[in-house]
Amino acid sequence: MPTDTPQPNFVLVRPQMGENIGAAARAMWNFGLDRMRIVAPRDGWPNQRAVAMASGAGRLLDEAVLTPDLPTALDDCAFTFATTARPRGLTKPVYTPEEAMKEAHARVQAGEKVAVMFGPERAGLENEDIAKANAIISVPVNPEFASLNLGQCVLLCAYEWRRAAHAATPMEYELAGTDWASAIEVEKLSEHYEDRLSDAGFFFPEEKADSMKTNLRNLWSRMPLTRADVQTLHGVLRQMVRWKERG
Amino acid sequence: MPTDTPQPNFVLVRPQMGENIGAAARAMWNFGLDRMRIVAPRDGWPNQRAVAMASGAGRLLDEAVLTPDLPTALDDCAFTFATTARPRGLTKPVYTPEEAMKEAHARVQAGEKVAVMFGPERAGLENEDIAKANAIISVPVNPEFASLNLGQCVLLCAYEWRRAAHAATPMEYELAGTDWASAIEVEKLSEHYEDRLSDAGFFFPEEKADSMKTNLRNLWSRMPLTRADVQTLHGVLRQMVRWKERG
Repeated sequence: MPTDTPQPNFVLVRPQMGENIGAAARAMWNFGLDRMRIVAPRDGWPNQRAVAMASGAGRLLDEAVLTPDLPTALDDCAFTFATTARPRGLTKPVYTPEEAMKEAHARVQAGEKVAVMFGPERAGLENEDIAKANAIISVPVNPEFASLNLGQCVLLCAYEWRRAAHAATPMEYELAGTDWASAIEVEKLSEHYEDRLSDAGFFFPEEKADSMKTNLRNLWSRMPLTRADVQTLHGVLRQMVRWKERG
Repeated sequence: MPTDTPQPNFVLVRPQMGENIGAAARAMWNFGLDRMRIVAPRDGWPNQRAVAMASGAGRLLDEAVLTPDLPTALDDCAFTFATTARPRGLTKPVYTPEEAMKEAHARVQAGEKVAVMFGPERAGLENEDIAKANAIISVPVNPEFASLNLGQCVLLCAYEWRRAAHAATPMEYELAGTDWASAIEVEKLSEHYEDRLSDAGFFFPEEKADSMKTNLRNLWSRMPLTRADVQTLHGVLRQMVRWKERG
């Protein structure tokens, strides 16, 4: 059974080596975190190498939530961080691990579900993955030598989580009778816009369509949207379609 | 040649596995530290496994100062920290890694030589070693699961060194070739949506129109919009209008 301590979910996206999944589990549990989600692990699941490496933190692997794709892993989360080693040409707020885990702590204390994504060992997260995040975490490393591996990146974030959770001065958000939108609500908003704008011929020319879609998704995911905002933005689009249909 | 950045010496005391010495070198250089001292490594020196693991940080091993005993390794240092995983019944100040590296930074800036000792993998430092230290560093781990290895302990201390040495940088946005939208740009965006949505009959019923407009304006003004975002959102709306006009 996971502990009942409110905490973020650490999401390993397409991890490659079992050893690194096990090392991530140990790194998390060293700092009291035990909610792992794993998206499409390269070598399938369960993974004996992960179990061997996790040793005393094996429970985290047994209880890990396995999903086939990233949207499923994030669908109940209202705020998602993506860890990246280098700039990606996407407009997002960039946090240090310390700032990010303070923010995560404040949100978790307020009852929100928070996720922190970690990419595959070799290449890190794809831009398409990062576009689903609200913010980026970048570890301030030596610019001449940036070679943190997956386990080390998890370790530093978990360490900062524990620092934030034990220093606790919770921040408050004023939410006027509404709640933050969850990732699945933002995802559905993205899809709604993408579908209707496709019908309307927005993604043109063809060779630019994919990057236009990524930019638009990034725009929605980056905004601090409440449920009420999401309803308004759906309503805006529906009204434009109705107007068209009336001719 | 080591960099000439003033910094503490990281002292590995009787390290056992070459892989861990290499991992420590990488962890240090990730955060810009390159002064390693090694006391009586179990498997002799040089160590090919250390070299293989260090990859891009191999220079630290070439330049490491090798000593047969701990007093020799520390003899020019004015202040020494000992990392320990558990209380040792020795009366010493106990620092977190953050506090320790702040202290180290202040001392190094004042021209003092500072050392940070790390014990052998299995048992950690002996009490006899710790007795030579001025203070203890203890990483605040989960009391139910404290299993940091040598490389991880070096990583956390090196990370905190870099945080201490680089005065807190404010949060940054990665702005992908764009700039924040000005208030007037956001205002024009608001107007554009308000006008077209009025044409489309969105603000209905009449008695709710004003509060719907206010909500929509608040939505735009509350979002961290770039110029590129504003252009995209204008484009979205224009395309919907064109689609309608094509009938």
